[in-house]
Amino acid sequence: MTDLLYLEDLAIGQTFTSESETMTERELLEFAARYDPQPFHLDHEAGAKSIFGGLAASGWHTAAFTMRLNVTSGPKFAAGIIGGGGEITWPAPTRAGDTLHVEYQILEITPSRSKPDRGMILLECRTVNQHGGTVQLARMKLIVPRRAGA
Amino acid sequence: MTDLLYLEDLAIGQTFTSESETMTERELLEFAARYDPQPFHLDHEAGAKSIFGGLAASGWHTAAFTMRLNVTSGPKFAAGIIGGGGEITWPAPTRAGDTLHVEYQILEITPSRSKPDRGMILLECRTVNQHGGTVQLARMKLIVPRRAGA
Repeated sequence: MTDLLYLEDLAIGQTFTSESETMTERELLEFAARYDPQPFHLDHEAGAKSIFGGLAASGWHTAAFTMRLNVTSGPKFAAGIIGGGGEITWPAPTRAGDTLHVEYQILEITPSRSKPDRGMILLECRTVNQHGGTVQLARMKLIVPRRAGA
Repeated sequence: MTDLLYLEDLAIGQTFTSESETMTERELLEFAARYDPQPFHLDHEAGAKSIFGGLAASGWHTAAFTMRLNVTSGPKFAAGIIGGGGEITWPAPTRAGDTLHVEYQILEITPSRSKPDRGMILLECRTVNQHGGTVQLARMKLIVPRRAGA
């Protein structure tokens, strides 16, 4: 069991890396059918004719898949991964069979002025495929408790 | 069948509203188990003890659920809903049994300088529950084709 991370344990520039996991075509199609039923996420031919140039996972699937990696093998923040929001872009689509991992870097650390038991961090989460390409770049604000308040 | 929307059909300030849909507890738990398996998304008691004050849907589930509403009953952009990214916040959690709809407003319209067949819009997507509370506020960049290029 990894030790839990509190605000005092973190430093700007600190990095972490998740495990890798493969998105199967079945999972890609199931998510698309349920949450983003557009032709280029459901059908190879429609994907090939689209701006994606082939069957492409929904960006929200890449986001959800990234979140699973965050929870299962990302940095172990003491209160879990509680996001206040952030920015997200998808520089390239995730393809069926892609093996993804997440590279993290702490960009900002802001102790709360009103709540002495916690702070906010800005965490860059770069989701990378087996070719080294970035399929998602997210900068998320997360609440992290202080050890003193634990 | 609604007419498809091209860049020329859009105006800054234009609004749209999606249909409503209810997130069942079963769906909430299934998504959390698969993509965001943290105690406060999986268990009522753990949720009650957390910052959420009760069982809370994953923010990424709210995002995916919103995307389904976008596709099924949001504005019908001609090339579909192809997001280049954006900003997202979750001002309040989605609860099991919440009925959500999405309110849209076009904030910016930017014809492409290099690609005369398309442009980029900035679309605000506010996901609202049955009490009028905002559970997600997203400002997404979308690619929209020009009619002239169709």
